[in-house]
Amino acid sequence: MTVFHIGECIRKTKSGIPLSEDEIRALVRGITAEGEEKIPDYQLSAWLMAVCFRGLSDPETAALTLAMRDSGQVLRWDLPGAVADKHSTGGVGDKTTLIVAPIVAACGVFMPKMSGRGLGHTGGTIDKLESIPGFRTALSREAFLAQVRQIGCAVAMQTADLAPADKKLYALRDVTETVDSIPLICASIMSKKLATGADHILLDVKIGSGAFMKNDRDGAELSRLMLAAAKTDGRDAAAILTDMDQPLGTCIGNALEVREALEVLRGEGEADLTELCLTIAAEILCMAGKGTAETCRALAEKAVADGSAMERFEQMVAAQGGSLRGDHPEVLPVSRCKRILHAAQDGWIEAMHSETIGRASVLLGAGRQRKEDPIDPGAGIRLSARRGASVHAGDPLLTMYAASEAQLDEAEPMLRGAIRISGTEPVSQPLIHAQYTNRE
Amino acid sequence: MTVFHIGECIRKTKSGIPLSEDEIRALVRGITAEGEEKIPDYQLSAWLMAVCFRGLSDPETAALTLAMRDSGQVLRWDLPGAVADKHSTGGVGDKTTLIVAPIVAACGVFMPKMSGRGLGHTGGTIDKLESIPGFRTALSREAFLAQVRQIGCAVAMQTADLAPADKKLYALRDVTETVDSIPLICASIMSKKLATGADHILLDVKIGSGAFMKNDRDGAELSRLMLAAAKTDGRDAAAILTDMDQPLGTCIGNALEVREALEVLRGEGEADLTELCLTIAAEILCMAGKGTAETCRALAEKAVADGSAMERFEQMVAAQGGSLRGDHPEVLPVSRCKRILHAAQDGWIEAMHSETIGRASVLLGAGRQRKEDPIDPGAGIRLSARRGASVHAGDPLLTMYAASEAQLDEAEPMLRGAIRISGTEPVSQPLIHAQYTNRE
Repeated sequence: MTVFHIGECIRKTKSGIPLSEDEIRALVRGITAEGEEKIPDYQLSAWLMAVCFRGLSDPETAALTLAMRDSGQVLRWDLPGAVADKHSTGGVGDKTTLIVAPIVAACGVFMPKMSGRGLGHTGGTIDKLESIPGFRTALSREAFLAQVRQIGCAVAMQTADLAPADKKLYALRDVTETVDSIPLICASIMSKKLATGADHILLDVKIGSGAFMKNDRDGAELSRLMLAAAKTDGRDAAAILTDMDQPLGTCIGNALEVREALEVLRGEGEADLTELCLTIAAEILCMAGKGTAETCRALAEKAVADGSAMERFEQMVAAQGGSLRGDHPEVLPVSRCKRILHAAQDGWIEAMHSETIGRASVLLGAGRQRKEDPIDPGAGIRLSARRGASVHAGDPLLTMYAASEAQLDEAEPMLRGAIRISGTEPVSQPLIHAQYTNRE
Repeated sequence: MTVFHIGECIRKTKSGIPLSEDEIRALVRGITAEGEEKIPDYQLSAWLMAVCFRGLSDPETAALTLAMRDSGQVLRWDLPGAVADKHSTGGVGDKTTLIVAPIVAACGVFMPKMSGRGLGHTGGTIDKLESIPGFRTALSREAFLAQVRQIGCAVAMQTADLAPADKKLYALRDVTETVDSIPLICASIMSKKLATGADHILLDVKIGSGAFMKNDRDGAELSRLMLAAAKTDGRDAAAILTDMDQPLGTCIGNALEVREALEVLRGEGEADLTELCLTIAAEILCMAGKGTAETCRALAEKAVADGSAMERFEQMVAAQGGSLRGDHPEVLPVSRCKRILHAAQDGWIEAMHSETIGRASVLLGAGRQRKEDPIDPGAGIRLSARRGASVHAGDPLLTMYAASEAQLDEAEPMLRGAIRISGTEPVSQPLIHAQYTNRE
């Protein structure tokens, strides 16, 4: 191979000339290398900005994804059955992992799940689980594997040696306004998913005001690239485009979301959240060869109805050191101060702006602005109604929870601004916009 | 003023939203600042790449130019007459400064000239002058001013405190493939020109294979931006678009180019080079109020014809410690090895590719690839014929000069490739493509 010149790569991408697989591999090596081989950040960021303008071809995107996957440890599972993974592109009130993992485990599919913490207006599964008293998310490889083998599921903190090039590149993208490139988002998500080693990968692509993808076209493009990257690596993948114009379900905030997950597992969950979890679980079961779409949907519903999913959830919590039973949610923390927001007028709820509600939940203490910020597990928002509901002046719209009245004061105007009540009934919007697969 | 966020600036430029003057000033302050205020290189380079794709508006370009001018010392001259400056965007064989400065000085216009060294395929005036035995280019501010006052001209090394933001930004552009943005080129050139403090500025914009500007459209756009920036600063400026598809004159290489400058000052110069120098000098005299275009042209011609320009040149050389008289060029160094290249066929010279010839001169020792490389003042190329000349097989095309036969061997094939002989007489190309001014 000829000597690698990052300047040449920048020039090519800037001019719309595709990079070879060798060039992309060398570039990714240079991200995590030390010494002479290391590519300076100022050259990487120039390349990233050129990618934002020019895009990457499909083969470049796949090559970047695989090279980033190979920048760290690539896991392989030795389990007696199908191994599945799911990923959500991030939203507000998204607690589907807490529900889907025990459902599919109850149906005989293994789900060793690596998750992260929340940042900005979107939450993270690890923060949610850590609101359960005693719950441990830092598991050794051995303990993690043993738990998955025994219970069928485990959720642990993503380790630093998983796709370290993505970690480095993401930190740089975050401070150089180069986050919003669809090929870069694909490589970031899929490098980690492929390194995690599942055979079947379900991608929940959020669309709307609270999501990275603002419209179906971008969501479809991201799905297409992610499915193609998975295929290049010989993995089975499916993508589902789902609504994030309003928060998912009724709870936003860590312990509140665990509480809502228990409701779904008890069969008492909010309709949209329940529907989405069953759809995702059924699709995973289908990919894992558990039968037709109808059979798989029935399997998922049965796992909830017969309590076997709840049983897996309780086993997982216990195995990871937590104390929580499905019928005793009162052990979960609740912040000291609460305040109910009431409707100022009669009408229909026309909009509940996800991103604003997510940002308000951060003000309440449920999320963090910077990585090092602490969070309040008992803080958050419980919605009394969702989009399309008819309300009368004085009806409760939501309840805020926080450690201080000052935080409630700060979040209240933001939440008022996030909810729009209209005099006419709004057109209903679908929860699921589209579904894609990379199977032939 | 609100707190400055570089991320916000990157985002705006990326989206095509113009930055305010305050934002541009804060950005430029952040280039040279230390500590908290300093903008990291990786954010600057992302912004630079966004500029390459989106461009800058005219007010942004002017604001950037003025803010960069103010990043260091801004000179003001206290001289009893008009002060002029000239700048060439860089080419191969461009020794016009050595000729124009003494001509305009002889006609009563002051020309305190700051110049730089050559890099890559283009030469630098400082390197050329330093090939004169004893010539000093590092002058104190006092010595420089005294010389200009007495002789009318001086050429010194550009000091580090002149537009330091440009120096920093240029180094970053050089390694991030962000050199080719016309607004950034304008700001780079004009920040230094405006800091140098002349009232009248002549910009020689080179067009062609050996220049940054490959076509007239880009050259016209760069001229327009530079003239507008000068106007914003209340300076008189003119731009002239000139041919750089072939080298200027017949000599490329430092002492060789000084030798050719003497030929022009003796009235024995190659036609195109002589014409360009007289055009530039006349335009400067015109800007400085020395009369109509015709009067100024006559003044310039007279300064050459009566020897007064040569006298100024010799005075300048003597004042700066050099030993060289117009009729004794033999004191200039000539490299030990030489070789003549002959035409392989009959025909007309259709092309003499400037950039390739410039790169060949670097191989011969006349230029440098990296800033720290030494140069050989006696090395270079003397062309026996220029574009359009009719040649017969065996006629000399050029003579190479270098310190070693190995260097001649290395440069020869490159030079052969740079010259194209055709069976039909080529269409002649104009030396001067266009002229612009920012006067009303």
